[in-house]
Amino acid sequence: MTNANAPLDAVLAHVDATVEDSVARLFDLLRIASISTDPAYKDECRKAAEWLAGELDGLGFDASVRSTEGHPMVVGHARADAGPNVLFYGHYDVQPVDPLELWANDPFAPRIGEENGRKVILARGASDDKGQLMTFVEACRAYKAVRGALPVGVTVLFEGEEEAGSPSLKPFLEATADELKADVALVCDTDMWDEEIPSIITMLRGLVADEIEITAASRDLHSGMYGNAARNPIQVLAAIIASLRNPDGSVAVPGFYDDVAELAPQVKEQWQRLPFDDKAYLGDVGLSVPAGEQSRSVLEQITSRPTCEINGISGGYTGDGFKTVIPAKASAKISFRLVASQDPAKIRDAFRAHVRSLVPADCTVTFTPHGGSPAVAVPADGPFLTKALGALTDEWGKEAAIAGSGGSIPIVGDFKTLLGMDSLLIGFAQTDDRIHSPNEKYNLESYHRGIRSWVRILDALAEG
Amino acid sequence: MTNANAPLDAVLAHVDATVEDSVARLFDLLRIASISTDPAYKDECRKAAEWLAGELDGLGFDASVRSTEGHPMVVGHARADAGPNVLFYGHYDVQPVDPLELWANDPFAPRIGEENGRKVILARGASDDKGQLMTFVEACRAYKAVRGALPVGVTVLFEGEEEAGSPSLKPFLEATADELKADVALVCDTDMWDEEIPSIITMLRGLVADEIEITAASRDLHSGMYGNAARNPIQVLAAIIASLRNPDGSVAVPGFYDDVAELAPQVKEQWQRLPFDDKAYLGDVGLSVPAGEQSRSVLEQITSRPTCEINGISGGYTGDGFKTVIPAKASAKISFRLVASQDPAKIRDAFRAHVRSLVPADCTVTFTPHGGSPAVAVPADGPFLTKALGALTDEWGKEAAIAGSGGSIPIVGDFKTLLGMDSLLIGFAQTDDRIHSPNEKYNLESYHRGIRSWVRILDALAEG
Repeated sequence: MTNANAPLDAVLAHVDATVEDSVARLFDLLRIASISTDPAYKDECRKAAEWLAGELDGLGFDASVRSTEGHPMVVGHARADAGPNVLFYGHYDVQPVDPLELWANDPFAPRIGEENGRKVILARGASDDKGQLMTFVEACRAYKAVRGALPVGVTVLFEGEEEAGSPSLKPFLEATADELKADVALVCDTDMWDEEIPSIITMLRGLVADEIEITAASRDLHSGMYGNAARNPIQVLAAIIASLRNPDGSVAVPGFYDDVAELAPQVKEQWQRLPFDDKAYLGDVGLSVPAGEQSRSVLEQITSRPTCEINGISGGYTGDGFKTVIPAKASAKISFRLVASQDPAKIRDAFRAHVRSLVPADCTVTFTPHGGSPAVAVPADGPFLTKALGALTDEWGKEAAIAGSGGSIPIVGDFKTLLGMDSLLIGFAQTDDRIHSPNEKYNLESYHRGIRSWVRILDALAEG
Repeated sequence: MTNANAPLDAVLAHVDATVEDSVARLFDLLRIASISTDPAYKDECRKAAEWLAGELDGLGFDASVRSTEGHPMVVGHARADAGPNVLFYGHYDVQPVDPLELWANDPFAPRIGEENGRKVILARGASDDKGQLMTFVEACRAYKAVRGALPVGVTVLFEGEEEAGSPSLKPFLEATADELKADVALVCDTDMWDEEIPSIITMLRGLVADEIEITAASRDLHSGMYGNAARNPIQVLAAIIASLRNPDGSVAVPGFYDDVAELAPQVKEQWQRLPFDDKAYLGDVGLSVPAGEQSRSVLEQITSRPTCEINGISGGYTGDGFKTVIPAKASAKISFRLVASQDPAKIRDAFRAHVRSLVPADCTVTFTPHGGSPAVAVPADGPFLTKALGALTDEWGKEAAIAGSGGSIPIVGDFKTLLGMDSLLIGFAQTDDRIHSPNEKYNLESYHRGIRSWVRILDALAEG
């Protein structure tokens, strides 16, 4: 029998008592080879969607599989008339498994293994994202089992194309905006700070990308005939690129930092306390000296500070051997990672004005925009965030971290733009989970305490 | 009857009286489609070689067609025991004729046309190089007809692979060095200063070419995860390239100008008098402002001053669209045009030391050499040069110019290195001859007075 007034501890105790069943259900989902990028697995993707809809249905959700141009969406509603409603997002599709010979076991035959003294769930999708999304489903199951109801209104959205660039997501959100809109979105597809410290990602950098082409002479020239007297567009482009950074590592475009907000004091203070190994982070990719602003830590450089990167460059002869050509043109792909309050249009304008000021006589520059999106920031003192942080801290016994992500996560921008919702990015994955690689794993502790974390978070969000 | 003591004017008069026959013989050669780069014309190339050997044989040369791995050489000897011996060089092969539809007539059906009030010979190879080499053959013919002998010893070398990169030339010169060596080489494959002023090219720039690759991280990185903190090798490469030029247009590699010789005073003085239209030279390719050393004229920049050019650059993503990658490496092809006295090895070392001084922590640079050759310079006051200049001035009624060529002409370096000879580059082509293009032409005046010029030059070289 359920008891609508059962205490939180009773729900948590139920999670602990039934964790083996929770693992068994995850294993059922992991056995479905829902690889979204390979058309050969189309039926498996639908099978995963139907399996999830069935689970939600069993928990009392009004659940359905929604067809798209690609793989289907799963939507389930258990909304509340009063009190907050949340939208939970996860994705049921997984990465391909090649090279298969590097897997110790069949990637779709999940099993429990042990690594460094920890039990781990081994299977494709164990961490990304089936294990993560099931933490939420199992938390809902515990509430249903103990109390008969969820503490807040919940809508669930599971996508089946996240590993394929989410082509159907935006049109689907546009078409179902009224149906999916909630007070806050919960996205479970990210890492913890480390194995002991939970985190919520509240900062995602934005992006401005431009391609620039410098043209000089009306045709390619021979350096024997024109070398010295003819303007060389590669030289011009190099001078422009060199001018984009100051010797101290900061970006040299005038006005670039005008609207950059400093970290909230509580976040800055927290980051000084949190463990982050600069040396290990860079050393992992063969580097040792941070290249960005010298006055900022690596952690700030990659998450809370904006940057300018040259992503590609080409000009002249690039094949084997050598040709003494002075090319007519040269081009580069240049992007800026933005942080909150920086306006993509303003940054693009400042960049272009800076470039134009450096283009010498006889040269022309053309710009081709390749998208721009603002940074996303959830206020560090917002009520949902504060409650979720408290819940995570309670569960893990360590102060939950407010974190940033250096890259964009498109779903978060879409939720903000199309549904007008902030997102809380809460996940229990670890950086060593080998997602997208052979022998993907998810710590059993991540799964078990991930379920418990959502139980606590939903409880906290329900508080008035 | 020949008269061994006939005066120079008699030889010149013979040239004038028989110029129609000279044109007819050139037409015979122009009808042979000796395209060296297309294997379909292999037999035509041999036919041209045999035709030339036959002409030389008829003039009393000991002439032969010499097979090579590619198209044959033609060698003819009419050496003198006393007095100077010269080696004359030209090439009988021609460029392909595509696009054929842009030709007003069959490229291998030569005809006389008229352009801007001048008679012109229209055919593939009319200027490059059949018309030019025949000026020398016909000058020899006039001497034979009038005097029965040449005024100096002559060896002739005709190549059939000049338009195909001369793959057989160097081995052939090495194998026949003793046979071909003379006191000076005469090369007829260059332009006049303009339509009225003859010239001898005495300066050819040398070349040092290096490819540099900058590597940073051990693999390509995502700019979301690493942007700012990870060193970007394109940024590093751009800073290096930007550092190669000073704002005044000079090359900024330390020591680069240490061994650069100033123009001989008589050449410098002559260049100030000679017509050279900076605006037209640059305007022809869509430029207006010289990019090299601001204190030097365009003429100096492109011939007597060294330079540094970026011939190619590549790194990161260069396809359609955009990828926010921080690449692991970036590379550039960089070359230096050298002038006399600059040592290619020393310049390469200085360049590499300069680059190494700019490579930051975590980056490595690798260099791949792509050849180096010194500049070639014939002393502006050498006796052969002085005599040839006088002969040209007599023929054209305008002071002959001492000129430089911005690019290298490999045969000249080979003659110097392998045969120990200086070369005098004397040609009668014009910049508007459309060599390598449809409707190639050679001014009839270039042909006629080219023959007369060689008559005078051989006479002058014979003087004690």
